[in-house]
Amino acid sequence: MPLDASRWFIVTTPLSPSPRSTLGRNTDRGRHNRGDLYAVLDAGLICHLGFIVNGVPVVLPTSYGHDGDQIYLHGSTGARYLREDELPACVTVTHLDGIVHARAVMHFSMNYRSAVIHGTARRLTDPDERWYALHTIVEHLTPGAWDHARRPNRRELAATAVLALDLAEASVKVRSGPPPQDDPDDVAMDTAWSGILPVRTVFDAPEPAPDLPAGRPVPPHVMRA
Amino acid sequence: MPLDASRWFIVTTPLSPSPRSTLGRNTDRGRHNRGDLYAVLDAGLICHLGFIVNGVPVVLPTSYGHDGDQIYLHGSTGARYLREDELPACVTVTHLDGIVHARAVMHFSMNYRSAVIHGTARRLTDPDERWYALHTIVEHLTPGAWDHARRPNRRELAATAVLALDLAEASVKVRSGPPPQDDPDDVAMDTAWSGILPVRTVFDAPEPAPDLPAGRPVPPHVMRA
Repeated sequence: MPLDASRWFIVTTPLSPSPRSTLGRNTDRGRHNRGDLYAVLDAGLICHLGFIVNGVPVVLPTSYGHDGDQIYLHGSTGARYLREDELPACVTVTHLDGIVHARAVMHFSMNYRSAVIHGTARRLTDPDERWYALHTIVEHLTPGAWDHARRPNRRELAATAVLALDLAEASVKVRSGPPPQDDPDDVAMDTAWSGILPVRTVFDAPEPAPDLPAGRPVPPHVMRA
Repeated sequence: MPLDASRWFIVTTPLSPSPRSTLGRNTDRGRHNRGDLYAVLDAGLICHLGFIVNGVPVVLPTSYGHDGDQIYLHGSTGARYLREDELPACVTVTHLDGIVHARAVMHFSMNYRSAVIHGTARRLTDPDERWYALHTIVEHLTPGAWDHARRPNRRELAATAVLALDLAEASVKVRSGPPPQDDPDDVAMDTAWSGILPVRTVFDAPEPAPDLPAGRPVPPHVMRA
């Protein structure tokens, strides 16, 4: 998976075309509708948030939630950039599905699904909207947890900044299936193996906290597919 | 995993202190030496590269390789930002190791390892340095492939931009182990389960390309631990 373009690169198709969400290559591999975007976001646990601090880019991993046309992020009010009312941002969610072996090293690639969302994140101030966003983030990471564990109290809410970013300007890239067509000369030489090494994320058995009463069963919502 | 700081957040400790690589919270969870950085980079298959285009941040997933004090990236010369001699960049590698369930939703977190590298990527022009960087990237993604598959030819090299970013300014964050100490009141109420749901990346059986001669064995280097 090189950084961009060329015939083995996986390409973006915009959901809502704009210069920055439109990359013009290999459009057969783009994904075109909002459902494709939701599918990538639904399947993810973390995103990578990009923003600018003192003129240079910063990329941090963080959890998120999404609903309708918004993606939500949260963090401490102690972080300076989270105190801005508006933050130009890019949120990227990537799933790695396989390593693509080809007959030539420059044709190696990856199978993956990714969503890149461009926009300006706004800091939420309305208490109901903040509450809804936190609910959305918690339920995205751990469905069922909002009704199981204690909900946020006033002190915790005061220490938490919540951001919302519109999903309007986003692109989705998907590469799947077998390796690209190799160069005829490379196929004729038949020197190298070609194929996919599938990659997958799995969940292991839950590990109870040491201070949990012995023998307490694991609630069903903790388990993930 | 909220975006930053507060007592349940996982914190950065710089390898080489600078304002942007120093976050001053929960320093007990920082990792302090270059070996910790290498360990995070060694374990990763993709990074998220942040850079600035027309004044706004962009974050893209891509493969990488690293050796000594450099991390290498590559892409098509068709990408405009890859034609710059110097590109202010942030490269982040994240491994998700677990979902942390606590007794209160705002104490939920993740176990993870991440490295955030700040700097200015330079475009490589020296043929030997470019060759070495491509070798490093290929061998990072697929150890053994450089000696197995066909190496880059002149045409492929001409179409490929290669970037190098110094590892001098980087921070490493690690959260591991059980959930944080819950609030005494929450523990006394004993209403919620608390513990870790481990997350792991696995590789499945290789899938040969359809145009590969039948019965051809999978070379050992294709398999990953």
